[in-house]
Parts: sequence; C-alpha cells; structure tokens
Amino acid sequence: MARINDNYLKLAAGYLFPEIGRRVRAFQQTHPDASIIRLGIGDVVLPLPPSICDAMSAAVEEMRSATGFHGYGPEQGYDFLRSAIAEHDFACRGVTIDEDEIFISDGSKCDSGNVQELFATDARVAIPDPVYPVYLDTNVMAGRTGAADRDGRYQGIVYLPCTAQNGFLPSPPREKVDLVYLCFPNNPTGAVAHRDDLARWVAYAHEYDAVLLFDAAYEAFITEPDIPHSIYELDGAKEVALEFRSYSKTAGFTGTRCAYMVVPKAVSGVAADGTRVDLHRLWNRRHTTKFNGVSYPVQRAAAACYSPRGHAELRTNIEYYMTNAALIRRSLAALGLAVHGGINAPYVWVQTPTGLGSWEFFDAVLTRAHVVCTPGAGFGSCGEGYVRLSAFGRREDVEEALERISRALG
Amino acid sequence: MARINDNYLKLAAGYLFPEIGRRVRAFQQTHPDASIIRLGIGDVVLPLPPSICDAMSAAVEEMRSATGFHGYGPEQGYDFLRSAIAEHDFACRGVTIDEDEIFISDGSKCDSGNVQELFATDARVAIPDPVYPVYLDTNVMAGRTGAADRDGRYQGIVYLPCTAQNGFLPSPPREKVDLVYLCFPNNPTGAVAHRDDLARWVAYAHEYDAVLLFDAAYEAFITEPDIPHSIYELDGAKEVALEFRSYSKTAGFTGTRCAYMVVPKAVSGVAADGTRVDLHRLWNRRHTTKFNGVSYPVQRAAAACYSPRGHAELRTNIEYYMTNAALIRRSLAALGLAVHGGINAPYVWVQTPTGLGSWEFFDAVLTRAHVVCTPGAGFGSCGEGYVRLSAFGRREDVEEALERISRALG
Repeated sequence: MARINDNYLKLAAGYLFPEIGRRVRAFQQTHPDASIIRLGIGDVVLPLPPSICDAMSAAVEEMRSATGFHGYGPEQGYDFLRSAIAEHDFACRGVTIDEDEIFISDGSKCDSGNVQELFATDARVAIPDPVYPVYLDTNVMAGRTGAADRDGRYQGIVYLPCTAQNGFLPSPPREKVDLVYLCFPNNPTGAVAHRDDLARWVAYAHEYDAVLLFDAAYEAFITEPDIPHSIYELDGAKEVALEFRSYSKTAGFTGTRCAYMVVPKAVSGVAADGTRVDLHRLWNRRHTTKFNGVSYPVQRAAAACYSPRGHAELRTNIEYYMTNAALIRRSLAALGLAVHGGINAPYVWVQTPTGLGSWEFFDAVLTRAHVVCTPGAGFGSCGEGYVRLSAFGRREDVEEALERISRALG
Repeated sequence: MARINDNYLKLAAGYLFPEIGRRVRAFQQTHPDASIIRLGIGDVVLPLPPSICDAMSAAVEEMRSATGFHGYGPEQGYDFLRSAIAEHDFACRGVTIDEDEIFISDGSKCDSGNVQELFATDARVAIPDPVYPVYLDTNVMAGRTGAADRDGRYQGIVYLPCTAQNGFLPSPPREKVDLVYLCFPNNPTGAVAHRDDLARWVAYAHEYDAVLLFDAAYEAFITEPDIPHSIYELDGAKEVALEFRSYSKTAGFTGTRCAYMVVPKAVSGVAADGTRVDLHRLWNRRHTTKFNGVSYPVQRAAAACYSPRGHAELRTNIEYYMTNAALIRRSLAALGLAVHGGINAPYVWVQTPTGLGSWEFFDAVLTRAHVVCTPGAGFGSCGEGYVRLSAFGRREDVEEALERISRALG
C-alpha cells in the first residue's frame, strides 16, 4: 500500500494566484466587454533585450554543427557564466565569491524550494510574514510544521511579522532558530534592508549557529546608494548565509529560466554526531544527483547580461519598470492611501482604506476599475489590510489603470 | 544549531562518473599522446536536428517583440507541447492520456529524483540491480534506507537482481513493496520487457496496492515489433503507474533539457487516515510549488520533434546510433565475449572475461586500447563482471575503438 507524504495534505488548498485567476475569470464572464488590466502577478512584459536574444540565437546555431554541439554540461553550470557572475555580481562590489561556490539553476523558485532538503526535518525555521509562499509551502511539504490554524499559520514555524510599525523589517527572534528566510528588496512589501539591519541578522546567525537563506532576486531594482545588494557585503556573512539570485525580473527571464544560488564553502551545519559538514558539499551532491544543468543556449543568454551592451539594455528595462513604480506610488498617495516600497523594488505595498480587507479591496478595484492587484492576505496574515501592485506593466496600461483607480476611489 | 539532513552522509562517496573521470585524467597525464575514445557516459554527439534548431530560433525571435514575448508559462508546460505528446507519443499507439496528465520538465533525472517526495518516508522501495543511480540515491537522501553495506547495498531497499540467468528481467518480489522503479529499455543492461513481463508487474501493483515508476527514456530505440513503448499499453497500468519520458537521447537534448512525466488521474496512494489521494493532485502541487516551467524556446524545440520533418530527422539520428550498437555487438561477440542489449537500446552490456572484475576490465581497455567504457559495478553489485558500452559515439570513433579493443584483447 503506497502511503503518501501526508504533509502535503496540510497545505492550505487555495494558493493565492489560482484564486485571483478564478475571481478575474468570473468577473470577465459576467462583464465580457470589460478590458481588465493586470497589475497583480509579478510577470515582466518587455521583450527580451536584443543582445540576449542574439546570444541565445548564436548558441542555437552552434548546436547545429558537430563541432559546436553541446550535450551534457556541468550540472553546476558552465565556467563562462559562473566566472561572469563572480566578476560582475560580486567582485565589482568588493565581494569575493569563488566560481565553484556558484550553482546555476533554472529558477529561484526551485532553489529556494529545494534548499531545505539539506537540513534535518526537525530544524526550526523562521519565516517573515508576509512572504513569498514557496519558502513556507516547501517546509510544510517536508514535514517541518504541524497543521495550519484558521489564519493559515502553521504550528512549529517562527513567524517574523513585517508591519508598518517595524518598517516591514523583521528583527531577529528572541528564541533560537536554525534557518531564517530573508528577502531584500522584499517581495511583497518592497522594503529594503540597510547594512545595520542585515548586520543584526548576521550576528544572530553567528550567535545561534543558524543559517540565513537570503533571497536577493530583486537586487537589481535598488536605486538608492549604500543599500547592500548582496548579504555577502556584510562581514561574517560568508560563514552563515546562502544567497539566491535570479535573471527572471532583472533580465526578463520569467519564460527563459535561469537563476543561481551561492553556497560559500565556509557555511556549515551540524551532523547527528556533532561534526560540522560543509553545506557546499551537500548542495553539490544534491545538485548533481537531482539536476542536469541549465539549457546551453539559456546559459549563453544569461552570460550576455554581463556584456556592456546587454547590461545597458537591461538597465533601460529596469528603469522603465521603476518609472512605473514611481507613477503608482504618486497616484495612490494622491488618493490618500499609505504606500510603501516601489523605490528600491518593483512592488508597491498599499494599505487598504480603513475597514476594508485585502480581498474586499481587490474585489472593489476589480469590479469598479477593472484592475487586478494582489491581496496582501495571500502572502500571510500580516499582509491583511494591504494589496501589492506590481510595476511590471506596459506604461500605457499602468497609466490607464491608475486613472481608473483614481476615478473609482477618488 | 542548523542540523543537516544526515541521510546525505549515508551516500557512498564515489559516484561512478567522477571516478571514471579521475582514472581517465590520471592515464592521460602519464600518456599525454594517447588519443582516448569515450564510449562510457551516455551523451549524444550528433548535432541537434535542423528543424528543432529552426523551431528554437524562431521562438527566440518571438521573444524580441512585445507581442511575441513569453513570460511565465504554465508550470505544467504549454498546451501546444502537451497536446502533441498526447497525440504522437500515446494516442498513435492506442493509449489515451489526457493532456493535463502530462507534466513537462527539464529532465528525467529531476523527475525520477523528485517523484519520491510524494510518498511516506517509510514507504518500502524496490529497485533493480544494476540500476541508474538516481533512483537509489534520491531515496537514500530522503531517509528511506539505512546505511550501505560493503557491497554498497543499503538496508531497507528491496533489490531486484537483473542477471544473465533471468535475462536481466527482474521478477516481482514475493514480499510486499510500495514503490517499484522499472526502466525499459534498460539502462545499463539494454534489456527490454515484453508485454508478459510488464503484465506481471501491473498485476503485482494491483495486488499489493503498489505504484510503478516506469522510466521509458529509451523507448525510441526499440527496433523490434510487439515490444511496448509505454507501460500504459498494458491493461490496468493507468491505475498503478507513472511514466518518465525524455528528449535527451531521443532528440539529442542532453544539453537542451526537456522531458516529461505522465501522472494518470487514476493513480492514487493512501493517506494516514486510510483515504485514497490522487497522485495527480499531489504532483501538480509539487510541480507548481517547486518548479516554474521549462524555457519557452526549449518547449518549442521539443514540439518540433513531432513535426513530420523533425520526426524524420531524429529517426535518422537514432538509426545512426543503433548501427553503432550493432557494430559494437558484432565486434565484441567476435572476441568471444557475451554481449547483451544493443538491439532495442543504445547500450551494450558486455560480460567481462572470466576472472576480470568490472574495474579491472575498465582499466585494461583504458590502458591497452585507450578506450573508456563504464564499469558495470558502478550501477550496483549485480553489475560486477560487466561493462556498459554506449552507442552514442561518432561512427569513426566507434570503429576505431572497436579495432583497438580487438587488437588489445584479441
């Protein structure tokens, strides 16, 4: 009798984005003429930059000939990409990361979902609230939690509330945890962590022998100076932190798929017999056993992001989205709403008018302005009373959506 | 204190292919002039077929424009690919598989490694010996085994010996197991299962409420009639079996990366409270939580395999490799060696001369013929006394390698 993994049954049934899709479809069916603008899911809209397409096409051309054909590559990624990352994402910010500490993957969703496999089932996990749901769901599936309560909070998880009161910057817990998920610039709140904020987390990890799982997928959207782009800009982080990076938003790769994870050789955990074990060795074993490398043309496309022309092209796209973010901030603030984020992140976190819940505000904006946003409650109970607006839209759609929202709520 | 997953420490340190690499490098260093031919790792060498490159290039061109750009796709894969699979891989063989029972992925290594997550940690697992190491290693990592013994066999696994005596076709065990991994055409032995052989497994699964995990990655290499290409050609299989398929060898995608898994809606497992749970629902949740879909241009490339021109091109490549297999069989048989496989599979499984172990034969062929093969012992203790030769070489290399082996051993 094949017994299933019962932990899967603990997962709350309604995942956020399917529920949004259901409500939008229902509205569209009763209002077939409504032209709906989506500022909900964080998917990019600008085409893939030309130099990136050029690199990918050239790689496909290579594959046509016996001499240019590429079969199995190194599971960890090609040297041409790992060395470009080490130089352009780290060395140029004064951080030394060895090429073999970089593991190329097909997405940060996979990396941030798979990393928990390296740890014991009884590891104690701290997770911000609100949060990108993958961190939480993958720990539920692995059996690190009990059942969910009525607010959707799982027994056994240490939640780190991110609220307007703490500037959406959680503090280290007073209790001892083993793993901490952090994401800066933050999805969904758009908050960023300064050096001092991160230094407290690095100190906490050293004190309690914890590991920080740092998601920096949105670092390219930081516009202000003096904000760390990598956790490794902090002294001591290379002994306690793993970092996730992605080309999805930075370079428009949501449909092209490439990301990477940094696993410094100095980060370790503890085995049952008390010996310390490098996480690099464990992750290398995991990566080579369960993954067969990223498509060669895709790795060439990712490497093109570091050419002068590629870099300039993707900066242009990022500035386009950040102009959207500024428009969203200004327009909603003019309505008297409290807006957060959108300065160093492509997400604007908007407090709903007093008395209106996340989903009520979502429904109001959908039915009265025909605009889709993301209810904050879908990211955790501390997201109740907020919605997330994404800057990843076409300018004309963002402007039209903001006009409609202003008319509907003004 | 971040405690690690101690199960990782049970894994035998030396994975097969790194050890081969080490020995080859050591020989090359002391014999810098030796021209080494590799018939070891099963990587393809022929270029990607033109119509597949055309489709991939066209998809990259689409990504250049706002209207043709593709961002996040469905995690399960695009309909254009899933429907082509349902029609050309299944319906045309008389098998009805619904499009939404097909999950597109970036490799069968991932699928066959990840599928065990759906099952309870105490599920009892049967695995052939010799075997593709991923099935075993991923169950070790998940904690379904004890430590390895001196032969590299893990406590708790039910091994299914595949030997010359049983024609490399394991029989269902007398005891009850929950999960069974099967691979036909087989890697590494090249054996195929006929309808009767598979029918016994389907009957076993029904009798014991077990789930079959059927790896059909090499089905395109079947040349003889009346051999099932899919487990679903057997009555009753759709209630008890999941199937893995891959474009890696079939279409030369080892560096392009695409595969799929079939999860029929009728296959179920049992929850702690005794209720039956569809594995389709669980896998869909796993796939959408930990995976973000395959690169759009790669899915277009995979779909091109089903066009008349694409199909003809990949058949030509498969025939090229199968001619290699026939040459390998003939040449080694002429030396008096017992050869198996290579008729419906791209692998030839060769019994080493009496008294010579797998690694001794490997070393002899390397040092005397400068040819790399794969020691059978690396696939399990029943592989001792065999080596695997791969048909995935250039014709001139295969011919030269066979000439050298004949001179060295003749």
